[in-house]
Amino acid sequence: MSEHLIPLDFRGSAVRAGLKPSGAPDLGLIVSSAPCSAAGVFTRNRFKGENIAVCKSALRHAAVRGLVVHAGQANACTGHDGRAIARRTAEAAEGAMDSAAHSFLVGSTGVIGVLPDFARIESGIRAAAAQGLSPAGILDVGRAMMTTDTRQKTASATFRARGRQARILGIAKGSGMIHPNMGTMLAYVMTDAAIPAPALEGVWREVVDETFNCVTVDGDTSTSDMAVVFANGASGIESGEGMERDQLRDGLREVCRELARAIASDGEGATRLVTVRVSGARDARDARRAGRAIATSNLVKTAIFGHDPNWGRIACALGYSGARFRPQRVRIAIGPVEVFRDGLALSHDRPAAIAYLRENHEVEITVALHAGEANAECWTCDFSYDYVRINAEYTT
Amino acid sequence: MSEHLIPLDFRGSAVRAGLKPSGAPDLGLIVSSAPCSAAGVFTRNRFKGENIAVCKSALRHAAVRGLVVHAGQANACTGHDGRAIARRTAEAAEGAMDSAAHSFLVGSTGVIGVLPDFARIESGIRAAAAQGLSPAGILDVGRAMMTTDTRQKTASATFRARGRQARILGIAKGSGMIHPNMGTMLAYVMTDAAIPAPALEGVWREVVDETFNCVTVDGDTSTSDMAVVFANGASGIESGEGMERDQLRDGLREVCRELARAIASDGEGATRLVTVRVSGARDARDARRAGRAIATSNLVKTAIFGHDPNWGRIACALGYSGARFRPQRVRIAIGPVEVFRDGLALSHDRPAAIAYLRENHEVEITVALHAGEANAECWTCDFSYDYVRINAEYTT
Repeated sequence: MSEHLIPLDFRGSAVRAGLKPSGAPDLGLIVSSAPCSAAGVFTRNRFKGENIAVCKSALRHAAVRGLVVHAGQANACTGHDGRAIARRTAEAAEGAMDSAAHSFLVGSTGVIGVLPDFARIESGIRAAAAQGLSPAGILDVGRAMMTTDTRQKTASATFRARGRQARILGIAKGSGMIHPNMGTMLAYVMTDAAIPAPALEGVWREVVDETFNCVTVDGDTSTSDMAVVFANGASGIESGEGMERDQLRDGLREVCRELARAIASDGEGATRLVTVRVSGARDARDARRAGRAIATSNLVKTAIFGHDPNWGRIACALGYSGARFRPQRVRIAIGPVEVFRDGLALSHDRPAAIAYLRENHEVEITVALHAGEANAECWTCDFSYDYVRINAEYTT
Repeated sequence: MSEHLIPLDFRGSAVRAGLKPSGAPDLGLIVSSAPCSAAGVFTRNRFKGENIAVCKSALRHAAVRGLVVHAGQANACTGHDGRAIARRTAEAAEGAMDSAAHSFLVGSTGVIGVLPDFARIESGIRAAAAQGLSPAGILDVGRAMMTTDTRQKTASATFRARGRQARILGIAKGSGMIHPNMGTMLAYVMTDAAIPAPALEGVWREVVDETFNCVTVDGDTSTSDMAVVFANGASGIESGEGMERDQLRDGLREVCRELARAIASDGEGATRLVTVRVSGARDARDARRAGRAIATSNLVKTAIFGHDPNWGRIACALGYSGARFRPQRVRIAIGPVEVFRDGLALSHDRPAAIAYLRENHEVEITVALHAGEANAECWTCDFSYDYVRINAEYTT
């Protein structure tokens, strides 16, 4: 049994549809008993999975009921045929769940440029419905949508308001891109709080900006990335405004932050989970820019793999990040060891900084800009030989 | 002797000043007999080498005479003391060459955060002057400014106008960043064409945008990058406007393109020089954006190291580049093998594409956007185990 509290009235089911060559479970359904508010953030890549349009169309309609997700083929760069399959996939799920048109979203991950076999998707959906859906089945869906992930990623939170409890559960898969799988970041979060779709959209964009948009494994944005939240109101807690809205936002942030960290930690070839904390930026955008530039730098990431407290590479990435600051006010610390202050290298205990990087699986880089009040956290992994091996040697 | 024609009235000299721990030559002077027009493009990193301000100040004055460049310490993140050393370095060169104040630029590359030893710089400048400057000595300066480069980078061109010949010579060092050296891209180009500084500035920005700004080794922009051109007019060819201006621009582009390719080819751990050609973009900015995104993608670069004609990664990088295009019009070829057309994977001779990547040191990715008339070329290298080794294992 799971240690997670599943939001009320959400159920799931996963099956082997024959889409993954390995024969592992590869198709899942998640359904809410009642219609949901939903909001999504989708890839901005110009080459989009054909399923993305189906999702956006469902979100324009009021009564979202759920999701079908399949892994093995990403259904991207597949043209008219791919578009038709994405539409028919949603329709098959709506039919199997006796749900209205445009009430299901479609998630898809795997090889791009290859059409998924619709006959297998369709019989998979029927089989998933026939075997019955259950609250714990949602976690099976999380497993079925994994491609190159080495660990399943699940997170949950609860909050209480007016004597009731609301539950939040999230499942995600990671963002490493391995041929022949072009991996995709998929995140699906369910809550039994009640919130109108427009309010949920605002909350969700804020949460995604602070969490999933602050993870980088290799800096690439795939064709099928998406993060979607479903709120069915079954807890009876209205979270559209006021304190309850803040509670919902904080709970969603907690869940998404945990998923984001799990994605970074499970990056290809990763030996370290790296958190970059930026404080004192002019605004939140600058804080994230600075954090992301450091987290994306190959030079920073290889230095961490080599256990080198290389402040020069951190300062350099910060310098080209586009964030606004005065160099002579910047401080940088690696774990507990301050290495750079007021724009100058600081005489520091280098062996202690090396030992910190060597001995901890989770390591932190802290950057204080002293240019304002905004903060950000970004997450990445180090950059090892295995990244190159995984991404170069899958072939020939 | 060199196969390069040295622009008239430029001379150089390089010495061992004791700044590189290896004891190799590490300081050079380049001087024009007559005052030059000059133009420079400098790093946009917020942490700038202290010498950058000295260069900009010299460029604001009319009569630039030359350059002193030293390797070993980058004189970046060194504060007031570093600034004073950069100023005194220029003054020492001006004194040794009997030249006016603000007539010398200063280049600096190496470890950041460490003050260069000014006494050694000063005696190095004196020694370089004392041993005498010569045309061929300019190539020695090119060698002295190398840090982690494995090969010296030199290129030249000539053009004829009104019965005279103008010469262009460029020296450069590469952009890989290796601790304890934080490498820097330095490029110095000399010509004996005559052109007023304002016209030269326009030409130079255009040329740098199409050449040095289209190279990426690891995506990082260092604290001390600079590309500077000096024109002393000794050939008697006026190139400020008309056909001669175009000839000068084309010659500068040819020289800088060759240097840019040499920098990419000598990237850390590189086994392949990769040219990304983008055609049919809406404008030049879009063309470069698309080319740079592909050239910077770790996934594309590891795929090339693995000899995998992975169009999905190329399309994906193109998709998030920010360039404007319609996916269904895009074509992608790897060498002679077209792999993607009209937004769809193309049935292609995969073994031929693999063999192309395996058997050629220089490989090309061609992307046609069919969105306009603008083109760009970008250069990078592949991404090998040696990149990780060089950047992670220098320490501990």
